Amino acid sequence: MKVGVLTGGGDCPGLNAVIRSVVRKGVQEYSFDFVGLRDGWRGALQDDVVPLEISDVRGILPRGGTILGSSRTNPLKHEDGVRRIQDTLAAHEVDALVVIGGEDTLGAATELSRQGINLVGVPKTIDNDVAGTDYTFGFDTAVGIATEAIDRLHTTAESHMRTLVVEVMGRHSGWIALHAGVAGGANAILVPERPFDIDEVCEWVKSRFKIRYAPIVVAAEGAMPKEGQMVLKDRSLDEYGHVRLSGIGEWLAQEIEGRTSTEARTTVLGHIQRGGTPSAFDRWLATRFGLHAVDAVKDGDFGMMTALRGTEIVRVPLTEARRGTKLVDPSLYEEFEVFFG
Amino acid sequence: MKVGVLTGGGDCPGLNAVIRSVVRKGVQEYSFDFVGLRDGWRGALQDDVVPLEISDVRGILPRGGTILGSSRTNPLKHEDGVRRIQDTLAAHEVDALVVIGGEDTLGAATELSRQGINLVGVPKTIDNDVAGTDYTFGFDTAVGIATEAIDRLHTTAESHMRTLVVEVMGRHSGWIALHAGVAGGANAILVPERPFDIDEVCEWVKSRFKIRYAPIVVAAEGAMPKEGQMVLKDRSLDEYGHVRLSGIGEWLAQEIEGRTSTEARTTVLGHIQRGGTPSAFDRWLATRFGLHAVDAVKDGDFGMMTALRGTEIVRVPLTEARRGTKLVDPSLYEEFEVFFG
Amino acid sequence: MKVGVLTGGGDCPGLNAVIRSVVRKGVQEYSFDFVGLRDGWRGALQDDVVPLEISDVRGILPRGGTILGSSRTNPLKHEDGVRRIQDTLAAHEVDALVVIGGEDTLGAATELSRQGINLVGVPKTIDNDVAGTDYTFGFDTAVGIATEAIDRLHTTAESHMRTLVVEVMGRHSGWIALHAGVAGGANAILVPERPFDIDEVCEWVKSRFKIRYAPIVVAAEGAMPKEGQMVLKDRSLDEYGHVRLSGIGEWLAQEIEGRTSTEARTTVLGHIQRGGTPSAFDRWLATRFGLHAVDAVKDGDFGMMTALRGTEIVRVPLTEARRGTKLVDPSLYEEFEVFFG
Amino acid sequence: MKVGVLTGGGDCPGLNAVIRSVVRKGVQEYSFDFVGLRDGWRGALQDDVVPLEISDVRGILPRGGTILGSSRTNPLKHEDGVRRIQDTLAAHEVDALVVIGGEDTLGAATELSRQGINLVGVPKTIDNDVAGTDYTFGFDTAVGIATEAIDRLHTTAESHMRTLVVEVMGRHSGWIALHAGVAGGANAILVPERPFDIDEVCEWVKSRFKIRYAPIVVAAEGAMPKEGQMVLKDRSLDEYGHVRLSGIGEWLAQEIEGRTSTEARTTVLGHIQRGGTPSAFDRWLATRFGLHAVDAVKDGDFGMMTALRGTEIVRVPLTEARRGTKLVDPSLYEEFEVFFG
Repeated sequence: MKVGVLTGGGDCPGLNAVIRSVVRKGVQEYSFDFVGLRDGWRGALQDDVVPLEISDVRGILPRGGTILGSSRTNPLKHEDGVRRIQDTLAAHEVDALVVIGGEDTLGAATELSRQGINLVGVPKTIDNDVAGTDYTFGFDTAVGIATEAIDRLHTTAESHMRTLVVEVMGRHSGWIALHAGVAGGANAILVPERPFDIDEVCEWVKSRFKIRYAPIVVAAEGAMPKEGQMVLKDRSLDEYGHVRLSGIGEWLAQEIEGRTSTEARTTVLGHIQRGGTPSAFDRWLATRFGLHAVDAVKDGDFGMMTALRGTEIVRVPLTEARRGTKLVDPSLYEEFEVFFG
Repeated sequence: MKVGVLTGGGDCPGLNAVIRSVVRKGVQEYSFDFVGLRDGWRGALQDDVVPLEISDVRGILPRGGTILGSSRTNPLKHEDGVRRIQDTLAAHEVDALVVIGGEDTLGAATELSRQGINLVGVPKTIDNDVAGTDYTFGFDTAVGIATEAIDRLHTTAESHMRTLVVEVMGRHSGWIALHAGVAGGANAILVPERPFDIDEVCEWVKSRFKIRYAPIVVAAEGAMPKEGQMVLKDRSLDEYGHVRLSGIGEWLAQEIEGRTSTEARTTVLGHIQRGGTPSAFDRWLATRFGLHAVDAVKDGDFGMMTALRGTEIVRVPLTEARRGTKLVDPSLYEEFEVFFG
Repeated sequence: MKVGVLTGGGDCPGLNAVIRSVVRKGVQEYSFDFVGLRDGWRGALQDDVVPLEISDVRGILPRGGTILGSSRTNPLKHEDGVRRIQDTLAAHEVDALVVIGGEDTLGAATELSRQGINLVGVPKTIDNDVAGTDYTFGFDTAVGIATEAIDRLHTTAESHMRTLVVEVMGRHSGWIALHAGVAGGANAILVPERPFDIDEVCEWVKSRFKIRYAPIVVAAEGAMPKEGQMVLKDRSLDEYGHVRLSGIGEWLAQEIEGRTSTEARTTVLGHIQRGGTPSAFDRWLATRFGLHAVDAVKDGDFGMMTALRGTEIVRVPLTEARRGTKLVDPSLYEEFEVFFG
Repeated sequence: MKVGVLTGGGDCPGLNAVIRSVVRKGVQEYSFDFVGLRDGWRGALQDDVVPLEISDVRGILPRGGTILGSSRTNPLKHEDGVRRIQDTLAAHEVDALVVIGGEDTLGAATELSRQGINLVGVPKTIDNDVAGTDYTFGFDTAVGIATEAIDRLHTTAESHMRTLVVEVMGRHSGWIALHAGVAGGANAILVPERPFDIDEVCEWVKSRFKIRYAPIVVAAEGAMPKEGQMVLKDRSLDEYGHVRLSGIGEWLAQEIEGRTSTEARTTVLGHIQRGGTPSAFDRWLATRFGLHAVDAVKDGDFGMMTALRGTEIVRVPLTEARRGTKLVDPSLYEEFEVFFG
C-alpha cells in the first residue's frame, strides 16, 4: 500500500511529529510506502510529490514547521481540482492520503472523501477551535509562549504603572486568550465570542491601579467591543466583519489611555506563537494522532479524522470538524471573571 | 464561613495557583474568611495557623512551591491526631478545610472526613498517578522539564556515540517516563508497571548505533528488570521492594556498557522536576481546581475532591483517589513500542 | 551612613539584582542604612521615600522589573529640581545616592553630582549603548528573548516560503539587532548606524528563496533605508528624524512583498524584550555592579559609575556615559555580512 | 586551499556554530575547500574524512553537539600518531586544519603545530578554564542551565525546609559553580580552587533556616573539604586526587543532615549542562571564533588560537592555552561571600 501525506494551512508546532509517527508506524508495522505532497493541496494539484522514508523523518520530532511545506491552497476553488488530484494520486499509485490540517484543509478533505478519495484526517490548529476534538496540537505550545510573554510583561507593567495590552492569536475563538490570560494572571480577557464593554475594561484597569499592581489585558485578535463603541474610522474591518488582524490591541491601548488618563502599551505576539519546538504535550498528542491515523488507513476506515477525547484518541467522521468553529463556552469564560479587575 | 487551607506531600508546581484561586473566589464571591495551616497536617496538629488574605495570594500564580509550606506528616499516625486537628479547627473557628495533596494527604483527608471533619480535596502529584482524575497539575511541568533535558542529551549522545540513560521520577508509575520519553524521542522507555528485559534493551541500543544516532533510554526511578536479571548486590531494594531511589539509571548504564561494549552515561533529573514556575497547562488546571473546590465548600459538598474529566472539572468522592495508584495501561504503553530500538 | 537608591528609565532585567546586592553588602559589610526613592527622580523630587532593608530585597534576584518603580522624570526639567532633591535628601538624612539608570538618568546624575550631591551611578539599558562599559545588564536577556523568537520564526518562514521581518528594540543603536540577528542566523540585519539599501535587502531575500530556506530579516526599530528610498507618506518620522517606533518592520514587509512578489510578514517583539527574569549573565553583571557601587560609596568615590571592562568591574567618571551613544562599529558589522543573503 | 576541520573533547554548545562560520566564510570569501575529520583526532589518525560544504552547515547554528562527531582520542599517545595524521592530510591534500577543542585537544594541536602541521585552534570548554581567553563558548549555556535548575530548586527547598545541594560541572575549576551560584542566589558556593570548611557550610545552612528561607549549596564536582574533613572511606578519589565525579554533592548532603539535624537532598546536573541549543551569547562567540579562525588560516598565521579579550576577538599563540587551567581568582570569589549564609 502506498500512502501520501500532506500538511495544509498555517504553521503549527507538531506537524513534523505527526509525519514522523505516521511514517515510522506505517513502514515498520504495516510495510506501507510513503510519499509526501509538497505544500498542502498545492502539491496534489501540481504533482509535486517527493519520496518519504524513515530516514527523512529522523530527528524531526522536536522541530517546528513541516518538512513537507504548507500552503492555503484550496483545491475546490481550482477548476478540475478534484480530477487533478486524482490524476496525481494515480500517477504515483497512491492508495490513500493522510491529510493534516485545520478547518479549511479538512473541509476540502471532507469533500474529496465524498468524491471517493481514500483519506484520513488529522486536525491541526494552534487556535484549538476545530470541532470534534478536546484539543489540537500546537495549541499548548502557543499558550505556553503567550503565557511566558505575559509573565515578562507583568514586570514592565508594574515597574512603570502602565497597562499592557497583549494581543494574541484567535480570529474566531478565544481559546489562546482565555488559557494564556488565566495562566498569566491577566486582569481582563477579551475574546471574539463575547463583545466586551470598553467602559467595564477601563473600570478594571482603574481598580487595578489602586492596589499598585499594573493591569494586563489579554485580547484575542478577533475580540470586539460592544456595538457602537468602536467608530468605523478607528479601524477597518475585515471580510468577516472582524477587526482587522493586529488591530484590536492598539485600539484598546488608545482607548484606555484616553479614558483613564493612565499610560498603556500594546504587544502583538504574532507569528512567534506558531513556530518553534512543540511543547511536550503537543509532541505527545501529535505523535498519537499520527499513530492512530495510520491505523485508520490500515483499517480502511476512510473519511474519518483522529480526535482527542479525555485521554483517549478516537476516530470521528470528518464531518464533525465541519460543524463549525468550536467556541469558548460562556460558562467556562465566566469561571474566570473573579480574576478580572 | 471560615475555611482552612493546607498543602501536604511533595513540592508540586501549581500549589500556589490553587491557594490563590481558592482565596480569590472564596473572599470575593462568597465572603469567606481564610486561614492557612502551615506545612500540611503538621500545622493542623500543632496549631500552626496563619491568616490568609487576598494580599497574601497576590503574585503567587507563577511561583513554584507553596506559600503555606508542606510536610509528609500523617495525622493518623499521631496519637489523638484526629482530636488535635478538631481542636485546632475549633480554636480558630474553622468550618471547613480545603486539603491539597497527593495519595497520602488525601488518604488522611478521607479518614478525617469520615470522622466528621468538613473538607474538600484537591489532588496533586507530579507523578499523575492519583486515581479518579485524567491529570493532576504539576505533571505537565515535570514532563516539560524532563523533555527539555532529553532534548539536550540527544546532542551529547550523538556527538560521542554513547548511550544516555535518563532517570526520571516515578516510583510506582511510569507516566512521566512515558510522556517525556515519547516527547523526547527516546529509544527505550522503562516503567514500573512492566518489568523490562535487559537483553532487549541492549538489542535496542545496538540497533540504534547502527544508524549513527545514539540511544536515549528513559527510565522511571521505579522501573525494574525481569526477575533474576538484577542481582541483589547490585542495588539494595527499598521498603516496597522497588529499586532504591536514584539507582536504576546507574545500574542500566553499567549493564549496557558491560553487555554492548559501548559507552553509557546516566543523568538523574531529581528534584528539578518538581520545582519552579508551573507550565501554562498546570496553572490553568490548578486554578480551575481551586475555583471548583471552593464551590464545593460553598455547596457543603464535603468528602469530595475535584477531578479533571476531558475538559471538565467534576467532583468525585475522595474515596476514588483511594482505589490505588493509577497505572499506565499496557495498551497505551504498547502504542509507542514502534519507536523503541 | 544613609544611602538612597533609585532606578530610572525603562524597565530592564537586573534592576532588582543591583538593588539587592547594594543593600546586602551595604548593610552587612558597612552597616549602612538604606532608603528607596520611588519611581526614579520622581521620588526624589516629590519626597516619596521608603525604607529599604535586607528583608525587602530577599527573593528579588530572579525577578524582572524594579521593586522601587521607575519613571522617565527628568529633575533638571523641573524648576527648582536640584533644590527639591537636596531637600528630600536632607529631610531623610541621606548622605549619598546610588543611581541606577540609562543615558537620561545618568545624565541628570552627572549634573546633580556637579552641583554637589554625593552619588554613584550604575549604567543600565537593554540597548547596550551606554558609553564607557563593555556591556550593560538587561542586554543579554533582551538578546536571548529576541534570539528565541527568531528561532521560532525560522520554522514558520520555511514552512510557508515567506520572509519574516523581526523588529527588535534599538532606536539609536543596533546592538540587539546585531547580536540576535547573528545568533538567530538572520539573512539580513539592519541597524540605525548604517542606512540600508532596500534593493540590496530584496536581492538577499530573493537569493535565499532559491535554496528553499526562507529569509529572516532582523531590523532595529531605528533602522532606516538610504535617503530617498522611503517616501515621507510611508511612515511619519519622530522628533529625532528616526522612523516612528514600531514602523520599520511593517514598511520592510510591504516593500519586500511589492518588490519581490513573495509573501512577507512582520513581528514586532516590543516590550517582551525588557521584562521577565534576567539571564544568568545579567544577574551576574548586575550583582557585581551593585557590589562595586556600594564600595564606591564606602570609598567616597562620588561622581563615578561602575563599568565592565573585559571581566573586570571598574569605576569610570559619570561623564564617560555622557560622551554619547555607544554605536556598533562598522568593522564589527561587516564581520557578519558573509551571512547575508 | 583545502582546510580540514575537527572537533575534539567533550560535547559543548556552539561547536556547530564554529563549523558553520568557518565553512561559510572560507568558501564564500576565500574560495577554500573543506573536509571534516570525524570524531576529533580519531578521524585524523584513521583517515575518516568527509566532504564539508555549505549545504552541510545549513541550519546547524542553533543545534547542540557537533555534526563532525567528537572523541577524546589523543594522537600523541598513538605510536606514529603524528606521521599518520600527516599521511591523512597528504592523502586528502589538506593544507591546514582548524582544530576546535579544549585543553587536551589544543595540547595535541600545539605539539603537532610544532612538528610542522599548519593549524589554527579554537578554544572550547563549558568549564571556561582554558587560559588565554576571557570566556569560551558553551560556558554561558551551561551556566544558564544550572541557574534555571537552581531557580527551580529554591521552591522545593523552601516548601520543605530542606537544604538542596546542587552539584555542577567543574573538576578543576569553579567557574560554572561561581557564576550559577551567584546568579541563582546560592547560600554557599564551593569550588575546587578553595577547600571548604564543612563546619562553616553547616553554619551557613543553620543561619539560613532561621529566616525561613531554605539553603541552596552549589558545589563544583571538584570541590573538596579541608584536609582531614573527609575520611577516605567516604568517597574514593580519582586519578588526580579529586573526589570522584558525582560524589561531592552526596557527601555534602549526608554531612549536612548529620551535623545540623535538618533534611538535605542532592541534585547532580550532569550532562544536561553540555547539550542542547547554545545560548545567544555562545552562538555569537562561537560564530566570531569561527570567522576569525578562518581569517588566521587565510593569513597563514598558524600555531595560533582565537581568544576573546573584552569585546574583541584576538589571536594568541596556542601555547597560551597550555599555561595551565585558568582558575577562579580568590579576590573574585571573595566578592560574593557577602551572600553566603
